[in-house]
Amino acid sequence: LQEITWDASQAEKGGFPHFMLKEIYEQPEAIRDTLRGRLDPESGRVDLSDAALSPEFFEGLRKIFFVACGTSYHAGLVGKYLLEALAGIPVEVDLASEFRYRDPLVDEGTLAVVISQSGETADTLAGLRLARDKGARVLGIVNVLGSTIAREAHRVIYTHAGPEIGVASTKAFTSQLTVILLLALYLGGLSGRLSPERARLLARELVEFPGLLQKLIPKVHPLLKELSEHYFRQENFLYLGRNILFPVALEGALKLKEISYIHAEGYAAGEMKHGPIALIEESVPTVALAPRESGVVYEKMVSNIEEVRSRRGPVLAFGTQGDEHLAGLSTDFVGLPPVSWEISPLLYTVPLQLFAYEMAVRRGCDVDQPRNLAKSVTVE
Amino acid sequence: LQEITWDASQAEKGGFPHFMLKEIYEQPEAIRDTLRGRLDPESGRVDLSDAALSPEFFEGLRKIFFVACGTSYHAGLVGKYLLEALAGIPVEVDLASEFRYRDPLVDEGTLAVVISQSGETADTLAGLRLARDKGARVLGIVNVLGSTIAREAHRVIYTHAGPEIGVASTKAFTSQLTVILLLALYLGGLSGRLSPERARLLARELVEFPGLLQKLIPKVHPLLKELSEHYFRQENFLYLGRNILFPVALEGALKLKEISYIHAEGYAAGEMKHGPIALIEESVPTVALAPRESGVVYEKMVSNIEEVRSRRGPVLAFGTQGDEHLAGLSTDFVGLPPVSWEISPLLYTVPLQLFAYEMAVRRGCDVDQPRNLAKSVTVE
Repeated sequence: LQEITWDASQAEKGGFPHFMLKEIYEQPEAIRDTLRGRLDPESGRVDLSDAALSPEFFEGLRKIFFVACGTSYHAGLVGKYLLEALAGIPVEVDLASEFRYRDPLVDEGTLAVVISQSGETADTLAGLRLARDKGARVLGIVNVLGSTIAREAHRVIYTHAGPEIGVASTKAFTSQLTVILLLALYLGGLSGRLSPERARLLARELVEFPGLLQKLIPKVHPLLKELSEHYFRQENFLYLGRNILFPVALEGALKLKEISYIHAEGYAAGEMKHGPIALIEESVPTVALAPRESGVVYEKMVSNIEEVRSRRGPVLAFGTQGDEHLAGLSTDFVGLPPVSWEISPLLYTVPLQLFAYEMAVRRGCDVDQPRNLAKSVTVE
Repeated sequence: LQEITWDASQAEKGGFPHFMLKEIYEQPEAIRDTLRGRLDPESGRVDLSDAALSPEFFEGLRKIFFVACGTSYHAGLVGKYLLEALAGIPVEVDLASEFRYRDPLVDEGTLAVVISQSGETADTLAGLRLARDKGARVLGIVNVLGSTIAREAHRVIYTHAGPEIGVASTKAFTSQLTVILLLALYLGGLSGRLSPERARLLARELVEFPGLLQKLIPKVHPLLKELSEHYFRQENFLYLGRNILFPVALEGALKLKEISYIHAEGYAAGEMKHGPIALIEESVPTVALAPRESGVVYEKMVSNIEEVRSRRGPVLAFGTQGDEHLAGLSTDFVGLPPVSWEISPLLYTVPLQLFAYEMAVRRGCDVDQPRNLAKSVTVE
């Protein structure tokens, strides 16, 4: 006779063993909800009137500061690549805990974009107030309605991720990336740097992305679960990316660190030879992000992977499906569909979340409530 | 009967067991030589005419980019804090391997400062050429006379560190910091942001610093050697700093990684609660940089240290001599003389080098020729 136990929290998990996994699977919907009503795939036009944003708000803008902590900081790092490329506006990204205790060069020509899932992150809130006091316009990217940051920013673009319960942020992060993509398309259009044709193509791809992701997640999940068997005993990882996937490598490493207590460190792959490669041996695997579409950056990633392999370091590569060359070089390979550069951070983030999740489960960690961490860091 | 072996390379080590240790001990002289003829402690004036630098070169300057790799990149990160504070010029610091493969927003109003000990670092050289082609003025900070970067930059300020043989950079780094301090004093004077009184005080302190360091090194060395006995079996470290000592934490972690193959990771201490604190347990020590002179930043460091200790993580703290409070909180404490904020990176770097050195020696690593690493990364 077996007793079946059932409680309310399991019910809320909708059949998933953990909130984190449920939230990983909810990402297509979260991205779709965040896009809804804001992007016209026919014209490529972005409408941010729900955030009371109009071109006037951005007049005389000379610089953008992203100010955030943790995972939200990684969203800001992606934002730098996107906004500089699409809109040609100089972007600086700062950790809120650093920004608030220096005297940052912020003035009336500055837009401070503060990012926080909860809208209550103490350092980010302090950064917001500092930027505002220095005369900057402040735009919040926030998930929780009516939170302090949402109230104190001049404007808020909400992510529509829904409640996020798992301490390690997943759907809130990809929703933040979605908002930042919208902002880049919007400012790219305003600046004239982004052509209407390119904007239309990107808009169409972005609108179709949730559908692509919805098919992809259940397809790659079993593979990542299987891979976690090879890797879960390792205590040290490097995560390598370049260009717009460098912040994704940082975020992938942070996920693994947070929930599996494995010391995973993200690096810009070009830095390997300047130190971290000394760590490489059979017991230190490298996760490498190398979409074939990334051209010269792909070539450089391939040569970084070769260097790691020649020192007997295992490499788990994430790249473009059908890339036999990369698959042959690597110890393990996960193929993903080809997407545009702008959208690649959204895509490559998700399998890294699944990998971190399965690693933590296999190590017997409390995935939804990792030790020492709180969902929202409201104290300094 | 014992045979005494002796060879030329030992002779060149001047009685030290390794080049790295010799070079750590040579830092007072390297800093003194780098300052020589360039700084008048009476007036606080900086003279960079040996680099053919005059105010005209900096006319119309709107932005500074530091472009570098590895340890030199950390010097650039310190440079951002110094130049923004002393001269009020916006500074961006980029890894050369990232800078060269994006389309950085560089124009005629930009000064690109490229930093390389050898003057031959492939990615940094490529970054130099990209910046130059985009119309930027390029200033090199280089140790090797007549190297490619020295020849191709518009101007060069040489570090006078002398030949650096150990693969892990020590005296080249502190000499780079010295040049950057000179540049900050120079541009601070030009901009009018740095008062003549403050410039005089800083100049005097800087000129006296080599003497202070010369006394300090033999004093703290035995202590760090002793501490390495407590720590050398650990495989994972976090290094924490804030503000201008955040890059020093990164550099300290890189040293340990390079020569002892310990996975040491540097973090801005404010980020701890956003993920890395999940790693903390008895076997993961934290190195914390917390000078009492740093005011509110010191208070925040103290609370970070308390958080680590409350999770049973050992803390090796570097702070101000006589700081009983910090010493009491920490597992181990190394006291250093109080110095000005601007000079603190120079000071705090040195004991971290000695610590990494003693750890590597105790682990039986080849300190001067760590595995997988080359002295100068001249291939891409």
